[in-house]
Amino acid sequence: MSSSESQDPAASSEAQISKKAAKKEAAKQEKLRRRQEIAAASAATANLSVDEADPLGGNYGDVPLVELQSKTPVDVGEWTRVEALVAALENRTVLIRGRAQAIRPVGKKMAFVVIRENGFTVQCLVQAQPDTVSTQMVKFAAALSRESIVDVEGIVSIPAAPIKGATQQVEIQVRKLYCVSRAVPTLPINLEDAARSEVEIEKALQAGEQLVRVNQDTRLNFRVLDVRTPANQGIFRIQSHVGSAFRQFLLSENFVEIHTPKLIAGSSEGGASVFRLDYKGQPACLAQSPQLHKQMSICGDFGRVFEIGPVFRAEDSYTHRHLCEFTGLDVEMEIKKHYFEVMDIVDRLFVAMFDSLNQNCKKDLEAVGCQYPFEPLKYLRQTLRLTYEEGIQMLKVCLKICKLINLQVVDKKGDRMMDVGIEIEPFGDLNTEAERKLGQLVLEKYGTEFYILHRYPLAVRPFYTMPCYDNPAYSNSFDVFIRGEEIISGAQRVHVPEFLEQRAAACGIDVKTISAYIDSFRYGAPPHGGFGVGLERVVMLFCGLNNIRKTSLFPRDPLRIAP
Amino acid sequence: MSSSESQDPAASSEAQISKKAAKKEAAKQEKLRRRQEIAAASAATANLSVDEADPLGGNYGDVPLVELQSKTPVDVGEWTRVEALVAALENRTVLIRGRAQAIRPVGKKMAFVVIRENGFTVQCLVQAQPDTVSTQMVKFAAALSRESIVDVEGIVSIPAAPIKGATQQVEIQVRKLYCVSRAVPTLPINLEDAARSEVEIEKALQAGEQLVRVNQDTRLNFRVLDVRTPANQGIFRIQSHVGSAFRQFLLSENFVEIHTPKLIAGSSEGGASVFRLDYKGQPACLAQSPQLHKQMSICGDFGRVFEIGPVFRAEDSYTHRHLCEFTGLDVEMEIKKHYFEVMDIVDRLFVAMFDSLNQNCKKDLEAVGCQYPFEPLKYLRQTLRLTYEEGIQMLKVCLKICKLINLQVVDKKGDRMMDVGIEIEPFGDLNTEAERKLGQLVLEKYGTEFYILHRYPLAVRPFYTMPCYDNPAYSNSFDVFIRGEEIISGAQRVHVPEFLEQRAAACGIDVKTISAYIDSFRYGAPPHGGFGVGLERVVMLFCGLNNIRKTSLFPRDPLRIAP
Repeated sequence: MSSSESQDPAASSEAQISKKAAKKEAAKQEKLRRRQEIAAASAATANLSVDEADPLGGNYGDVPLVELQSKTPVDVGEWTRVEALVAALENRTVLIRGRAQAIRPVGKKMAFVVIRENGFTVQCLVQAQPDTVSTQMVKFAAALSRESIVDVEGIVSIPAAPIKGATQQVEIQVRKLYCVSRAVPTLPINLEDAARSEVEIEKALQAGEQLVRVNQDTRLNFRVLDVRTPANQGIFRIQSHVGSAFRQFLLSENFVEIHTPKLIAGSSEGGASVFRLDYKGQPACLAQSPQLHKQMSICGDFGRVFEIGPVFRAEDSYTHRHLCEFTGLDVEMEIKKHYFEVMDIVDRLFVAMFDSLNQNCKKDLEAVGCQYPFEPLKYLRQTLRLTYEEGIQMLKVCLKICKLINLQVVDKKGDRMMDVGIEIEPFGDLNTEAERKLGQLVLEKYGTEFYILHRYPLAVRPFYTMPCYDNPAYSNSFDVFIRGEEIISGAQRVHVPEFLEQRAAACGIDVKTISAYIDSFRYGAPPHGGFGVGLERVVMLFCGLNNIRKTSLFPRDPLRIAP
Repeated sequence: MSSSESQDPAASSEAQISKKAAKKEAAKQEKLRRRQEIAAASAATANLSVDEADPLGGNYGDVPLVELQSKTPVDVGEWTRVEALVAALENRTVLIRGRAQAIRPVGKKMAFVVIRENGFTVQCLVQAQPDTVSTQMVKFAAALSRESIVDVEGIVSIPAAPIKGATQQVEIQVRKLYCVSRAVPTLPINLEDAARSEVEIEKALQAGEQLVRVNQDTRLNFRVLDVRTPANQGIFRIQSHVGSAFRQFLLSENFVEIHTPKLIAGSSEGGASVFRLDYKGQPACLAQSPQLHKQMSICGDFGRVFEIGPVFRAEDSYTHRHLCEFTGLDVEMEIKKHYFEVMDIVDRLFVAMFDSLNQNCKKDLEAVGCQYPFEPLKYLRQTLRLTYEEGIQMLKVCLKICKLINLQVVDKKGDRMMDVGIEIEPFGDLNTEAERKLGQLVLEKYGTEFYILHRYPLAVRPFYTMPCYDNPAYSNSFDVFIRGEEIISGAQRVHVPEFLEQRAAACGIDVKTISAYIDSFRYGAPPHGGFGVGLERVVMLFCGLNNIRKTSLFPRDPLRIAP
């Protein structure tokens, strides 16, 4: 858990102290373990090379670089995937490549090596035998550093007892063992530690055992190791699937995929949160979203467009849900008359996406849930729509009841809203706590964790948002929530250039800096609307994760621009 | 044709003078036309509003904004798509929305309006009739500005003679006509002009008629108008399809889609062509490609990854094929032994993509070919592979023969290579002319315009390229060509950290700035390789276009950062 993650405020200070002590102790133990590892590794270095006197020396050793430099074209079929190692292959000789995830020597004549490939693992036994496996080869296996990449040739056997430490229920009797790429003997993160759930750590603690907890900064500093855990492999496969489901749905609905520039003149959509740079002597900035250009594409007659690409926000936000660079899923479309036409797309798109994730990413969702337990997302076949006013009303009633029942319960769960201060302003925006509370109320009343809140106050929306026809204090806009957190913002846009200019000016934007955008509406502009989604947020909230850094491959926040 | 596009050097100076004169004349005529338009428009302004005395005034007019502000939810089915207007709908009343592409009044009692939607057009007749269409309504129709968006309600009829000026072979007898969004009366680009082919212009010129030629800068300045032409609509739908075919193939081959940061510390892959900026007080730059992070993802156990996203090059290139920002299609994958494993993916991926484009984008390819004629790409079922040495050999033989046959033919086409100076250095790179010539030779000998050239000299490849096992002057790398121009660069990478450090230093790169990248290989790194493709180049060369600005929606070059 990162220090930047929110702590449970209900935890007593006593518990916190013991947690601190536990952390300290764990760190100490970790240091000790590493020191021992280094010692073991340097002792092992002597065993790295093949014993020249060993007549069976050809069966093991490091693969020389020249062999990996495209010396001989390969029949990839030579290798069997770890995933494919099943009982039906009994007695067959197979060749596999993977990482040495765990190495356990048993005396001098035997060593177990667990090989991992793409999340699947198999136990391999290197046992000294005349004519095939020398004791030097066992020594070589025992000296392998964890996470090294190896080629193993051996015979598939079926063990008497089920194998606990590997996904595959066969064992490989190793005949040949070659190291393709050696990992350093002491890894900055132990994968076993990185893959451990909070539940396991707490359980062990209650049993008096101190297990290492890898904090988030360490994870991110050594991200290439961190992402090898089953949960992280799952997260990024789920992310890939979200993008794919998003595209597939929109392409089937006649949307065109576009790519708009990230380098733009002027100051994007205004505000302070923009990265500025010099573009061949001209002042420029990084697009805060494809907003202006996707609307211009609608003026360019593409009818319905979408884009998947990076968006840049130079905000000083240190929360669990903000990044300085994230992947935006953006949609813009002509409408005939009403912003509900856009909400209809949101509705069908997301229900299709959630269905697809639940159907096609079972294994990945399980892997995530194993380390970070979560309940499957509750969503309706037709997405619930509430107006902002209805939402405010629900919050007001709830606040009133809470106050009536018991004014003293401010410290207990369920009434935290009162002490963290939900402020309800009818024409302001909802703060994070109010959004979360509303999410709870909606779940209780309607049984869904996915819903649309629309008809927001105009004052809290961007200048290009179309006001409501009947009350200009409200707007034809919406936000969409998952588990009480916002993931989508959308709206009908102002398509009348004179009105757009007026709105921009009213919002304090220098109209000259966006003249190309405003001019786009002078050549005939269809009524239109659209929305933007944060990819990392969708994955985070679908999986009930607590920090957006977990769903960004190489996250960027105000303090982090590496690796 | 843009001034930045290459002129045909074979053109005589006389022809150039007459071309210049023609251009001048065309510009004059264009000015005149615009002045007339402005006059017509201001005369027409008086007709914009509905005549209050007209008892049939309810059948036409401007749609008031309030009606477009989501006042009433809509049944989108009310509207019929222009594409769907066929003879079977005879005598039915339909409602359509589209742009008034052409308006032609005939006397005071009749006006033709051609409505365009998504590239399909239909002729509408507004004819004065008692009880339905007033002469004031005809006047209103005649005063519409081109490219305005209108709603037309009318009855489908089948005209006696085929309709030439529209794609649909029915006519709409207009009953109601409302303007949804008015275009300014004088457009900076006339769509008819923008859609014209060079062939048409030349033909007209020979018949003594001066037609307007819209130059590329004007097109790009008013891109939202320019992209409305059939050819441009086709280009960007083809582009969308390329991305979709790319993804679909890779996902089916177990690749994972990733998103790597564009904001990075240090100086990306080095060199001068990098955009620098301040990142919260730290020096940063925009990624010149996802190279480093996609390789790190391989170290992170994703096995096979791809990314589609912007790449940034601050190069001072003013050629027809360079941009400062373009869309990179990037692939990286583990290999067992040989870079041919990567080339196999390139081969199958692109053959599948070309097949898919030819099958699924017929209409779009035709639209492009109509304005910019081109021959369908010639490619083999299994992609040709030549070594760099074989390529050089072909060029050398050709040069020799040319010289032997006729030294005086330097001015004629086909031997231009000699005067523009193809320089062949066995361990240097091929220049653009040499690449083009080699493309011709390959086409003649092997009948393909798509091929792979591999085993490039190491000296001309990036530091992370794996040298050949048998000769370190060459490398396990390749380029891929379409119609004689490079679209892909790929290679096996160095996966040994010490060797990588050494290669970086040898290439003059400060190893400290890429330490996170190099460290990634210390925790066990599989042999791997990959490639990068420029999306805009693929579309440009598949369609035989002459400038990459044609295939970038809002292009960025050293002189252009708007719109």
